[in-house]
Amino acid sequence: MKFSFPKKVMAAALCVAAFAGSAQAAEKVYRLKMAETWQSNFPIFGDTPRNMAAMAEKMSNGRLKITIDSANKHKAAFGVFDMVRSGQYDMGHSASYYWKGKVPNTLYFTTMPFGMTAPEQYAWFYHGGGQELMDKVYNKFNLMSFPGGNTGNQMGGWFQKEINSLEDLKGLKMRIPGFAGEVLAELGAKPTNIAPGELYTALERRTIDALEWVGPSLDLRMGFHQIAPYYYTGWHEPGTELQFLVNKRTWDRLPEDLQEILRVAMRTAAYDMYIQSYHASAENLEKMLTEYPNVQVKDFPADVIKAMQDANSKLLAEKAAADPLAKEILDSQAEYMKKARHWTDVSDKAYLNNFNAE
Amino acid sequence: MKFSFPKKVMAAALCVAAFAGSAQAAEKVYRLKMAETWQSNFPIFGDTPRNMAAMAEKMSNGRLKITIDSANKHKAAFGVFDMVRSGQYDMGHSASYYWKGKVPNTLYFTTMPFGMTAPEQYAWFYHGGGQELMDKVYNKFNLMSFPGGNTGNQMGGWFQKEINSLEDLKGLKMRIPGFAGEVLAELGAKPTNIAPGELYTALERRTIDALEWVGPSLDLRMGFHQIAPYYYTGWHEPGTELQFLVNKRTWDRLPEDLQEILRVAMRTAAYDMYIQSYHASAENLEKMLTEYPNVQVKDFPADVIKAMQDANSKLLAEKAAADPLAKEILDSQAEYMKKARHWTDVSDKAYLNNFNAE
Repeated sequence: MKFSFPKKVMAAALCVAAFAGSAQAAEKVYRLKMAETWQSNFPIFGDTPRNMAAMAEKMSNGRLKITIDSANKHKAAFGVFDMVRSGQYDMGHSASYYWKGKVPNTLYFTTMPFGMTAPEQYAWFYHGGGQELMDKVYNKFNLMSFPGGNTGNQMGGWFQKEINSLEDLKGLKMRIPGFAGEVLAELGAKPTNIAPGELYTALERRTIDALEWVGPSLDLRMGFHQIAPYYYTGWHEPGTELQFLVNKRTWDRLPEDLQEILRVAMRTAAYDMYIQSYHASAENLEKMLTEYPNVQVKDFPADVIKAMQDANSKLLAEKAAADPLAKEILDSQAEYMKKARHWTDVSDKAYLNNFNAE
Repeated sequence: MKFSFPKKVMAAALCVAAFAGSAQAAEKVYRLKMAETWQSNFPIFGDTPRNMAAMAEKMSNGRLKITIDSANKHKAAFGVFDMVRSGQYDMGHSASYYWKGKVPNTLYFTTMPFGMTAPEQYAWFYHGGGQELMDKVYNKFNLMSFPGGNTGNQMGGWFQKEINSLEDLKGLKMRIPGFAGEVLAELGAKPTNIAPGELYTALERRTIDALEWVGPSLDLRMGFHQIAPYYYTGWHEPGTELQFLVNKRTWDRLPEDLQEILRVAMRTAAYDMYIQSYHASAENLEKMLTEYPNVQVKDFPADVIKAMQDANSKLLAEKAAADPLAKEILDSQAEYMKKARHWTDVSDKAYLNNFNAE
């Protein structure tokens, strides 16, 4: 008895230790809650966090389970930053520029008028210091922010009348929210914001003269091509990158393997959205122009583009002058874009232009 | 004693069961061997399988360990297909078009002259039926093939003399291997292949008149900008995608979570190489042109491009006529590219051209 009792206890203790050492770490299920800015069933944008969560769950063999609440559930589409910051949600899927009223320097991590295209901007995020600058802006709020999916180059919008000169922008009522709206306001346009559900009627009844949404990938289902004849090419959102937000305390509680699974799943889901958007844009542009062959795709005149660029530069110079971190971010983007655009010009741009020279 | 013995045994049995049920499945280490076509320390191309393996190991908490043999070890740079097929290696990192002498339809899964750009081709792979067609070609060889990293648009090459007309191609000795060489041969050029280590001397001593390698990302270290004045823009490899090969029996032996980890790690590493290449090209182009400001970046004349396109179309039509699966793949690419290029034209191309209209 003298030996048997300790032996038994030791065996049991070892058993627990073995179970704890391997299985507890291996089998504990981490359940995270994510809030997205989008309504349920919103295509592409909403597919991205779902694809991410599915990859993470499968790669972790069920140890990482992420449930997603849409805006119609949590009722706070533009409260995602605060809800993830406070820990009410562990994660968010949204877009950085939505927080510019709260934290002005968040503006620079989605896309900028006359800024980088999607591959240029990914290169800046991952190799040009962009992620580190995003960390600098977000980490003080107990938040981590990661690229969350790219729409590709967004179209300049749907217009009821042709834009032939700067005069045509004066007094133009256009739904174009955010910083791009500020740029247009400099040129005399009247930017407005209107709830998505009312956009079609507003454009049809000429309550507004023009609107921008995304591009063919998401514009098709809105039906704008049925009621507006001019579809202008883009200038204001050349590579819109959505955002995954993670509460820093949640991140720190995850074991290292699940941190890596989450990091890689977010990164892949973001790239995948860029490719899904590319595909959907190609398919939907063809559908739009086949169903409505009178829709004209147009470029803004060169002097209008020039005036938009000047207004954009003026507003950015004001922001840089007012805030050293804003200046640091804008300088980093401008310097990186100069190099990256030179490469784009001699590679894809030359190729695309030469090809059509046939 | 009657009760104590069975109890002890039962406890031990339960302990083993718990350990076996969770930990055995959870802790078994799968060791895979990968052969790459590249020499050790080959940048970017060689970084990609290493980044993939590191992600897989970290995400699996050490359960999936992939070791990589470079060509200087296995001595069979162009034997990767066979070595993975036979099971001598579990995986490979290479490029599909290297196998065209063995399996002609492998030609179509890397890049094609006048074909799709990187995002267009990823969209084809993942949404336009490209992956399914690649499966059709590879699965009968007990192989799975996945996108393995994109170089971006490759440059047309380094030339000692300007190409001003089709006449200048006649008799031109150029290092340009593979199908692109066949296209140039149609126009009277003399394509040759020369080992990478001898390229610099061959170009310097005018043993060859021209050569193509990759683009600034990898050309800089080769030093061609020091000895050739003309750097032509691309036509023949607009979106070169490398390849991960997996032996099907190895894949089938992996538990589902490790299959997903491997799939996602390969997918992310491939996208990441596209972005790494973009960055390296931007950096290195700047370096080249700063160090050697006399280097001229040039486009081939329109009639030369037109003749290359015609020669390319002729050769592809011959391949389609000779093999129904080749026709199926080429038709799928042509149809997809038409839609995708229309989108590229109204999005990135319009944006890049309008921007410079300033």
